[in-house]
Amino acid sequence: MALSSEESNVLVHHDGGITTVTLNRENKRNALSLELLQQLETVLVTCEKDRDCRVIILRAAGKVFSSGHDLKQMVDRSAEEYEALFAQCSRTMQRVRSIPQPVIAEIQGIATAAGCQLVASCDLAIASEDALFATPGVKIGLFCTTPMVPLVRSIPPKIAMEMLLTGDPLSADRAFQIGLINRVVPQQDLASTTREMAEKIAAASKHTIAIGKRAFYEQLSLSEADAYTQSVGVMTENSLHADAKEGIQAFLEKRTPVWQT
Amino acid sequence: MALSSEESNVLVHHDGGITTVTLNRENKRNALSLELLQQLETVLVTCEKDRDCRVIILRAAGKVFSSGHDLKQMVDRSAEEYEALFAQCSRTMQRVRSIPQPVIAEIQGIATAAGCQLVASCDLAIASEDALFATPGVKIGLFCTTPMVPLVRSIPPKIAMEMLLTGDPLSADRAFQIGLINRVVPQQDLASTTREMAEKIAAASKHTIAIGKRAFYEQLSLSEADAYTQSVGVMTENSLHADAKEGIQAFLEKRTPVWQT
Amino acid sequence: MALSSEESNVLVHHDGGITTVTLNRENKRNALSLELLQQLETVLVTCEKDRDCRVIILRAAGKVFSSGHDLKQMVDRSAEEYEALFAQCSRTMQRVRSIPQPVIAEIQGIATAAGCQLVASCDLAIASEDALFATPGVKIGLFCTTPMVPLVRSIPPKIAMEMLLTGDPLSADRAFQIGLINRVVPQQDLASTTREMAEKIAAASKHTIAIGKRAFYEQLSLSEADAYTQSVGVMTENSLHADAKEGIQAFLEKRTPVWQT
Repeated sequence: MALSSEESNVLVHHDGGITTVTLNRENKRNALSLELLQQLETVLVTCEKDRDCRVIILRAAGKVFSSGHDLKQMVDRSAEEYEALFAQCSRTMQRVRSIPQPVIAEIQGIATAAGCQLVASCDLAIASEDALFATPGVKIGLFCTTPMVPLVRSIPPKIAMEMLLTGDPLSADRAFQIGLINRVVPQQDLASTTREMAEKIAAASKHTIAIGKRAFYEQLSLSEADAYTQSVGVMTENSLHADAKEGIQAFLEKRTPVWQT
Repeated sequence: MALSSEESNVLVHHDGGITTVTLNRENKRNALSLELLQQLETVLVTCEKDRDCRVIILRAAGKVFSSGHDLKQMVDRSAEEYEALFAQCSRTMQRVRSIPQPVIAEIQGIATAAGCQLVASCDLAIASEDALFATPGVKIGLFCTTPMVPLVRSIPPKIAMEMLLTGDPLSADRAFQIGLINRVVPQQDLASTTREMAEKIAAASKHTIAIGKRAFYEQLSLSEADAYTQSVGVMTENSLHADAKEGIQAFLEKRTPVWQT
Repeated sequence: MALSSEESNVLVHHDGGITTVTLNRENKRNALSLELLQQLETVLVTCEKDRDCRVIILRAAGKVFSSGHDLKQMVDRSAEEYEALFAQCSRTMQRVRSIPQPVIAEIQGIATAAGCQLVASCDLAIASEDALFATPGVKIGLFCTTPMVPLVRSIPPKIAMEMLLTGDPLSADRAFQIGLINRVVPQQDLASTTREMAEKIAAASKHTIAIGKRAFYEQLSLSEADAYTQSVGVMTENSLHADAKEGIQAFLEKRTPVWQT
């Protein structure tokens, strides 16, 4: 619980294998300042090493999920400062993917620019009916180029292009239809639906989830033939692990498995 | 007809250019044992050389399409045995793609793990309204890593990730919405709908279908520029073929074409 | 206005930063003859250099959007002639992508073969409710291999495969659901809806739109890690541009930005 602090940009709460990470800059529309991005990365790195953390819920305080970069940090900076900011942002986003625990975004409001990028970067996403997703940088002369990277890898390209060129928001229903989010539920069911999905994943073998998540992203940009070569190796290794042996045995004996990890 | 046998894991029936291949382990929920996978590959290789086979329907006996690997073959094996099984499975799945004839999956029930992989590997898929699609390996400690390969190349990544991390099934309606299947129809219309699509493809020039299917998969993982370079060559060759000459001539003369292949 | 001509295959009209390009072979179902493809490319190259052109609407005269290649140019040609035709077609399609201005397809009727390819190649697409999309080359023995290239990069592969193998058309509603088009509207609202989207884009910084569109296509076939590396550089450069500085300043001051480009 040491990471939790009322003054922190990012609150962390552990409960039964589930770590809830809360963006905590409500009065700044949860803008992703350099400090917040660094703290979020640190939290993720800490989670990675935490043996008790099996799944992460990423949520936000207040009515806005995240408005993206902190515009006050975008005024009159040098090339080096801009690059440092965007590089940190990209590192944090890629950290969501590289840690072994699945990360579920819980989106209660609007997610814009790097906030939308954060949603696209999470492994799973659940949103309330009134959530919105937008990459409106074009309206301030700054194309959402880095948010585009995970966005266009999550949804059909013409939909991403429209978001990027017009800045117009995508509704939660349309986001669900095209696969940007996994569930859309009434606001009052958002926390419980996310929790339920997290608990399901937390009940699985941690080792199995970890090798699966890693394999997923490692083979995404490979040709199908190369992806198969890699996946056969991963699945063979998985099969030899104690948790797979136990899982199969438990299934054949019609009992609940007891994982070692 | 020599391949057909009541005792076989895979039944084969030829009728008017359409080869129907039936997974025939109803009492084992059509589990994809090593033997079945080998036989299925043999059947596909035989079809490839069969001048009369123009399109393949892949269906299953009983109420389950396929439950995936035969778990009894997954208990206490060596690394070599696991690898041989997964390699055979991957070969059979890739064979579906590499033969010149289109393969239409006809899914009458639940398709799980490697069974779901088989659906994703087929060129086209038609399902009944009560069909389900799942990659539930995580529940037995064995992440569906190889099923993931064609799955995530067929549907949006977050939907695939949810299936893989939770094991929860996708309904036929949602599978249709996101493009995993081409049609969803009432159970009583399943066979006739599949047959109708197969007949339409069987009526086309075999040569044209073959070069198209090959070009489709060969350019999938290329950049768009490289894909164009390759496709211009394919289309030029196609244009010089007797069936294209006949097809264009027949169209201009408003008559039905008579294919040479 | 010099490009406009009643006799031309392609009409061009400039109005307030928006260039409307009209396929003008109504009595030939707007078939994409070699001459039309060359003229369309010339128009696009001219637009690229036109400082006043900020966005392009690509529409068609009459009831058909485009029927694809001109079949009369496909009869009894040499390999060199076919290759030259398909190469020109591919060049024109790629030119839509490579020019800095976004291109919005306005589809009022059926778009088939290379006509469907043209829709898939545009950055955005808006269609009337009765528009249809098809790649029916297989019916004349000529697989739509080059139309396939942008099509399968826009929609789920099994849907593309069905269009290619059967030649059956996709409805505007289904095209919208899977992301081939951005909007589907009643015929009487088509022009105004397209115009509205074009005006929104025309109101943005031209420089910002241009670097965004280029970055979009340049990173599409890269791995996510490589795409991030490239995008951080693009976004840093964008941030240092006068239009981004003005856009952010205007936002903080709650006023409308005045772009330099």
